[in-house]
Amino acid sequence: MNKDKRILSGMRPTGRLHLGNLHGALKNWIQLQDQYDCYFFVADWHALTTDYADPAAIRQNTWDMILDWFAAGLDPQKAVVFIQSRVKEHAELYLLLGMITPLAWLERNPTYKEQQQQLETKDLSTYGFLGYPVLQAADIIIYRAHGVPVGKDQLPHVELTREIARRFNFIYHREVFPIPDALLTEAPVLPGTDGRKMSKSYGNCIYMTEPEESVRRKILQMVTDPQRARRSDPGDPEKCPVFEYHKLYSTAEEIADVVQGCRTAGIGCVDCKKILLPHLLGHLGPMREKRAALEKDMEEVKAAVQSGIERAGREARQTMALVVETVGLGNHA
Amino acid sequence: MNKDKRILSGMRPTGRLHLGNLHGALKNWIQLQDQYDCYFFVADWHALTTDYADPAAIRQNTWDMILDWFAAGLDPQKAVVFIQSRVKEHAELYLLLGMITPLAWLERNPTYKEQQQQLETKDLSTYGFLGYPVLQAADIIIYRAHGVPVGKDQLPHVELTREIARRFNFIYHREVFPIPDALLTEAPVLPGTDGRKMSKSYGNCIYMTEPEESVRRKILQMVTDPQRARRSDPGDPEKCPVFEYHKLYSTAEEIADVVQGCRTAGIGCVDCKKILLPHLLGHLGPMREKRAALEKDMEEVKAAVQSGIERAGREARQTMALVVETVGLGNHA
Repeated sequence: MNKDKRILSGMRPTGRLHLGNLHGALKNWIQLQDQYDCYFFVADWHALTTDYADPAAIRQNTWDMILDWFAAGLDPQKAVVFIQSRVKEHAELYLLLGMITPLAWLERNPTYKEQQQQLETKDLSTYGFLGYPVLQAADIIIYRAHGVPVGKDQLPHVELTREIARRFNFIYHREVFPIPDALLTEAPVLPGTDGRKMSKSYGNCIYMTEPEESVRRKILQMVTDPQRARRSDPGDPEKCPVFEYHKLYSTAEEIADVVQGCRTAGIGCVDCKKILLPHLLGHLGPMREKRAALEKDMEEVKAAVQSGIERAGREARQTMALVVETVGLGNHA
Repeated sequence: MNKDKRILSGMRPTGRLHLGNLHGALKNWIQLQDQYDCYFFVADWHALTTDYADPAAIRQNTWDMILDWFAAGLDPQKAVVFIQSRVKEHAELYLLLGMITPLAWLERNPTYKEQQQQLETKDLSTYGFLGYPVLQAADIIIYRAHGVPVGKDQLPHVELTREIARRFNFIYHREVFPIPDALLTEAPVLPGTDGRKMSKSYGNCIYMTEPEESVRRKILQMVTDPQRARRSDPGDPEKCPVFEYHKLYSTAEEIADVVQGCRTAGIGCVDCKKILLPHLLGHLGPMREKRAALEKDMEEVKAAVQSGIERAGREARQTMALVVETVGLGNHA
């Protein structure tokens, strides 16, 4: 327990979460909320860096995602849950940090050119897209966070945040910002129904609060070891995406049985999936019910987020008062 | 009279104004305040784009400049006078406009590479410096200004603002921002005491509220037509920087006499300057006195600016409510 240490993390508002999101990040947040002073936010301004031309869904996606956060057990009593664009001070710090951030640091950001290539149907040669690591740095250090839980692919961004924070402290001769550490999260990568990485853009997702019948159908249609063409062929669980689900949801005994049955063709893929299904559905059921209950009480959900926005706003304004005084602008009327 | 039309203009906080600033921009503002709904601001965030590493003077320079504005006749009852960094919404709009601004528009900005070369002792390869036309666009369109009084050198920036405003309206299918016009100002360029353009960095300035003795000394030491080495040489007023001052301050009759006297060596340079001096000092005296009076009542000056900040803030928040609704973020709690 170290509620003195502050952690910050955000997710872009992609709407309802799938099992990849749940196990990749959200489960980790839910653990962290008991150990740290946690700030979790919907990165809606970040969504604009790539979806500026079609933002219609951002608002709906914001609430869909927050409902899933709460349904999975994220507790606004334990963590500060808020929406980025509602704490305007992030924009102010982004502006001030931009003044001291060398362009070269942004241009060499490995994900910059990578994402431009991946999303080549969108025009991402914008000023905002180039600067999203500056905004990310502002998001983190405005709360003077000590740690940022991230996956491996996000490490370069945290490194950039650390460099920007150090440069600010150096230029203005004052340790305004603690240098945040990356808390590397080793999360299971849950494959989608086609065996590839689970991703909305692939259309291969199982959603956290999807109706039971739909989950059942998707699992039964899910690809298995491609080498196991016929029921009588033996299979290799390590090549089967369904096996990744067993590892997460089934008992040790069942896992052993499934491995044995698959390798000897003692069970078929449908049998195997039927062992998984009650566990998976049992895991998802309470979250789906919790979400249904929350949806009936949106006023309370919004009040919880509003109070998170206010709490985050107070912290952000405290930091900004110090920043503005340090830089030498501002509250001198 | 067209108080329905809104005008916006800003100056970087360079401290006490010199006669170049006075005649180049401030006199024009003072005329405009009777004709338009005027917003005039201290561009302190812009000062950071080039002076991020040494901002200590910004605060003092802000008030020194505002005192000179008021001393020269800018009237906070007629125009909204405020400080950029005190209206945080400029930063929010800067962030949102950055999302839709192509990098190429900024990279081809003619003053971008020019200034980098001129100020080569400073490292200006920063994200903030590249983006200052985006901030400038935000400054202007957040008040849905119809016009921007500018000198010729600023025309490319107003053009960029127009392009950004058009692009926003186009992408979001709504005429949120009027497209502002450049109001080209034909202002006299007053040379400094060494005959070059008057500029703090050349150390050749005469300040608006400089003590009388100091103004007198500077004028008497001021360079004249370099061809007129001796009292007996005839001179050419068109090559004499002092003559530019006569054109502004002396009577038509005196100007005719000075031209005649100079060309025929009938008068010496000191004689010529002594004709100018009472006019110049008579022009500066009331401003110096007004400034001294204002300095004794800083509370009132600050209250006037505070009320400008509040008025500007209300306008900016109205625009941002519309922007945020249009983009699809924000006030949905």
